[in-house]
Amino acid sequence: MLSGYGNDVHTENAKNLILEACQSPESEVFFLTGGTQANKTVIATMLKPFEGVIAPKTGHISLHEVGAIEYTGHKVIELLVENGKISADTVADYLETFLGDENNGMMVVPGMIYISHPTEYGTLYTKKELTDLRRVADKYGLKLFLDGARLGYGLMSRNTDVTLPDIAKLCHVFYIGGTKVGALCGEAIVFAKGNTPERFHSLTKQHGAMLAKGRLLGVQFETLFTDGLYFEISKNAIDRAEEMKALFAGRGYKFFIDSPTNQQFIILTNEQMERISKKCRFCFWERIDADKCAVRFATSFATTKDDIAALSEII
Amino acid sequence: MLSGYGNDVHTENAKNLILEACQSPESEVFFLTGGTQANKTVIATMLKPFEGVIAPKTGHISLHEVGAIEYTGHKVIELLVENGKISADTVADYLETFLGDENNGMMVVPGMIYISHPTEYGTLYTKKELTDLRRVADKYGLKLFLDGARLGYGLMSRNTDVTLPDIAKLCHVFYIGGTKVGALCGEAIVFAKGNTPERFHSLTKQHGAMLAKGRLLGVQFETLFTDGLYFEISKNAIDRAEEMKALFAGRGYKFFIDSPTNQQFIILTNEQMERISKKCRFCFWERIDADKCAVRFATSFATTKDDIAALSEII
Amino acid sequence: MLSGYGNDVHTENAKNLILEACQSPESEVFFLTGGTQANKTVIATMLKPFEGVIAPKTGHISLHEVGAIEYTGHKVIELLVENGKISADTVADYLETFLGDENNGMMVVPGMIYISHPTEYGTLYTKKELTDLRRVADKYGLKLFLDGARLGYGLMSRNTDVTLPDIAKLCHVFYIGGTKVGALCGEAIVFAKGNTPERFHSLTKQHGAMLAKGRLLGVQFETLFTDGLYFEISKNAIDRAEEMKALFAGRGYKFFIDSPTNQQFIILTNEQMERISKKCRFCFWERIDADKCAVRFATSFATTKDDIAALSEII
Amino acid sequence: MLSGYGNDVHTENAKNLILEACQSPESEVFFLTGGTQANKTVIATMLKPFEGVIAPKTGHISLHEVGAIEYTGHKVIELLVENGKISADTVADYLETFLGDENNGMMVVPGMIYISHPTEYGTLYTKKELTDLRRVADKYGLKLFLDGARLGYGLMSRNTDVTLPDIAKLCHVFYIGGTKVGALCGEAIVFAKGNTPERFHSLTKQHGAMLAKGRLLGVQFETLFTDGLYFEISKNAIDRAEEMKALFAGRGYKFFIDSPTNQQFIILTNEQMERISKKCRFCFWERIDADKCAVRFATSFATTKDDIAALSEII
Repeated sequence: MLSGYGNDVHTENAKNLILEACQSPESEVFFLTGGTQANKTVIATMLKPFEGVIAPKTGHISLHEVGAIEYTGHKVIELLVENGKISADTVADYLETFLGDENNGMMVVPGMIYISHPTEYGTLYTKKELTDLRRVADKYGLKLFLDGARLGYGLMSRNTDVTLPDIAKLCHVFYIGGTKVGALCGEAIVFAKGNTPERFHSLTKQHGAMLAKGRLLGVQFETLFTDGLYFEISKNAIDRAEEMKALFAGRGYKFFIDSPTNQQFIILTNEQMERISKKCRFCFWERIDADKCAVRFATSFATTKDDIAALSEII
Repeated sequence: MLSGYGNDVHTENAKNLILEACQSPESEVFFLTGGTQANKTVIATMLKPFEGVIAPKTGHISLHEVGAIEYTGHKVIELLVENGKISADTVADYLETFLGDENNGMMVVPGMIYISHPTEYGTLYTKKELTDLRRVADKYGLKLFLDGARLGYGLMSRNTDVTLPDIAKLCHVFYIGGTKVGALCGEAIVFAKGNTPERFHSLTKQHGAMLAKGRLLGVQFETLFTDGLYFEISKNAIDRAEEMKALFAGRGYKFFIDSPTNQQFIILTNEQMERISKKCRFCFWERIDADKCAVRFATSFATTKDDIAALSEII
Repeated sequence: MLSGYGNDVHTENAKNLILEACQSPESEVFFLTGGTQANKTVIATMLKPFEGVIAPKTGHISLHEVGAIEYTGHKVIELLVENGKISADTVADYLETFLGDENNGMMVVPGMIYISHPTEYGTLYTKKELTDLRRVADKYGLKLFLDGARLGYGLMSRNTDVTLPDIAKLCHVFYIGGTKVGALCGEAIVFAKGNTPERFHSLTKQHGAMLAKGRLLGVQFETLFTDGLYFEISKNAIDRAEEMKALFAGRGYKFFIDSPTNQQFIILTNEQMERISKKCRFCFWERIDADKCAVRFATSFATTKDDIAALSEII
Repeated sequence: MLSGYGNDVHTENAKNLILEACQSPESEVFFLTGGTQANKTVIATMLKPFEGVIAPKTGHISLHEVGAIEYTGHKVIELLVENGKISADTVADYLETFLGDENNGMMVVPGMIYISHPTEYGTLYTKKELTDLRRVADKYGLKLFLDGARLGYGLMSRNTDVTLPDIAKLCHVFYIGGTKVGALCGEAIVFAKGNTPERFHSLTKQHGAMLAKGRLLGVQFETLFTDGLYFEISKNAIDRAEEMKALFAGRGYKFFIDSPTNQQFIILTNEQMERISKKCRFCFWERIDADKCAVRFATSFATTKDDIAALSEII
């Protein structure tokens, strides 16, 4: 008989496989069902009542989670970004300003830095950038939290020097996204040694985030982290994205951002947008001027060479 | 390509099948992953800020959800119960006391009545009892919310006069539990006409309860409500429970509660408890005296005749 | 020029006078404006996210604060009472039940015991009862919090063996009510050594409880704790209450509760209630039967001998 | 005998005097003790669960309330500002961007525009600017909320065309600050007709914001709004500020911002700052470069001509 609430052998096995892949045997793994759920549960349980979380103004928690973080009572302190990323310098500048002002005790204390990798713009942090962010976090006593909803696509990018063990070493907490990389649902949260909030498992229940049949998540991550499947199917998205990128470039399209991952941001004229949207689905990103827009084409674990060939006929 | 967030044909189809089974075409259906998540999201989005929810002292939201309801800012007003049930009279008495005291505006206003069916004690409300609760709810301006985490086992009980359309008619909101009745995960929330909270779908995101691949829930409920599968597998649990009940009774065991559903509460001596627990798994319920305890044996959609035969060898 | 936010000499002086009266030099004092504000700010900042507060079912936080505690995300765990008091045994019984059930992590963890002294029924804890509650609190790792909105009237009762230093020694946190004992507004919260929540002053701002001109509270408590004024005016209420008690007893009235403080609960017939209510103001408490009700008469720092004489003409 | 919770004749009278001064007989007035308390209680009770409040990035609720708004579960949507003000165009631009993105239901819905008048930089909105903000609010279905903690100093500025009746007409809700304009404590919240949240008085209790002896606020506002006292003492601050402004200008000091109210922002060299700070108290505002800082000198209802004369000797 299978046990409930994640107390089963598949879940246990999945946790061990993930810690092995992270080369971080003393970390702790928990499985939740989705990204917003992971973000809000991790942030709310790691922050003290007077703390807020620093995030890029374009971060998922800043923009697209219906205020889920604020709903838990904590402020998202939004900093300006370039291509979806915040730099250690930007964070340090903010923290210095805060320290200059906070002696009267009227400000939210920054307690965490939230980043996503890849970002919402498909961009990636370098190992040096992550190291710098961690150094700033340590200097000022903050936690570094990496939202890895699309992590597989970052790790398999052809333009990254960041590995999974690097992330496990540099972040106080991060998660490995399953939902966007082939799972039905599921994100694997990894707390570095000593960072798991007290009674975290109970608190997932309080947040409505505990799955009765936790093995649904365990079985999937067990599979994804056996024989490198997670990396293999992530790599498929990258290979197709590179083909797609070459295809657009070859036809003379311009790129809105230079993305090394599965999300590609193309500039289309109004006419192109109208024509192409009749035959394939992409995501409107933002209007550039009266004549042009940026749009997003994304590949995934499931994108085939035939899909790219079909796109070639359309654009 | 399949759409995200429940905007897919399976989810659409599942909703229609459920509304048909409820004989309530103007109700609205939403799918969430689990019971606590459903309870907290429904209650928090239906109550006004100054309102609380009336519940049995032994209700799931009162005892076993790590304060998930209070975490959303609302009081659970706990009333005394018999066998897990609250009566319309008990609720009306409380409401009269409230009205006598509340004119100074210092009390939480009762805004909802929460019941579970079957209850945590395996018991069921009769159609008359539900009708009376609804009448009290209407008289005092409250909503009636039925937690149907185990609903299938209630509907297929041999001792009930309550049908799914009855529930759809008598409750302002209820849910049909999938998790405990064969699904990997999933609860189908049904709002009676006019009772869906404004922007409910968005609010599920704020609660961390929106599934990106919503079709995972849609596909399961589509299957469960095709050709009566939900009722058929629920009936299996009841048939096995009745066999188990007869088995215990035949051997002279006493029952702690007379339950007409899949949960059976047996009184064991310390010696029996120790002996049986070595060979099969059951749930400790409560100590009765120095010599005896009440324990719970539960059947499910997956219990077989062989399981009952095996139990027969053990007890 | 006077400083803001309580950084002034009057506030400083008031804190020292209070610590002296408490014989507890290492405690810390903060001033807030009212009782509900003090209750919610103290409880929310002392509890961990998974904790709730144990309280008498008739406690102020349970009944008459519009769910202010739950609004901060924490459950009030209501225990049955006698005359407004909970006993150490009742609390210990609950905690044992909790420990028997909580190993699955689904319950709110009790983190604090809330009592009021005098209670809402005018009754008082004995020194032994408080000592026993503290012993239970220590044994199970909870904090003991005493709501002293009416504390002066308790300390000056003729039937108490509890002193202010006793309370300072036995409670992790308590407050000395000013509002009900002569101040315009103000409650002095006293945290025992090591119990002040991190950044408590900042958190009072977050709770909307920080007074810009904090000296308004400081000046009042400085005055109340100079030359024993707090005790003197509290004693006036007790002296008048004893006279009132004797008056009612002498006229043959029965008492609903035997209260040793400034609140007296008298049983009136319907006829008496109608007649007396035309000439003086009292508080309806509860109906006893078709013919009789319990009502509350309260004296205060401001009640005069003439008031009692006038009452004598009325009843 | 005086009634509690603001049910007394002074409070009643104060409300009427305020409504008269506002020329808005159908508005409703409530008294709270301070600005942050007013901000959080008004915002939390007026917004729906999925809504956030638009505010200037330098607004008091954005920066200096320890996240009190987020603690109630709502996002502060911070927009860029000039001299502490947001323009109707900036708000409209944001709302258009929101509308373009929100159809997937993942964003916080803007439900309110928060402004302060005077702003934290001493600046004022013109009548046209307020009218434009209200027009945008109406067009997109938002509420306009004006934080008037320093309102008297704005109304009595020599450079304003905005009157109290204008504000009462243009805002859905605003408050008249007492604390910064002579009161011990107290802010008078004015809801335009039809805008008072349901059971607002009860909700102030839930927020810990209800004063038992509400007459403390009533008596003060009754006094302030009798014979124009509020305007008269506010004018004193303006007269002294203009003298101070002339004094600094005459001595060749530069201004950081051109403020028409009681807060004046002066640029000091490091040497000046050190010298002057030995003899009078001002507020450091921000560093401009290695040699210069901006500092704030504020006058008030209590500033005398002698104070200005003394300052003349110091600078």
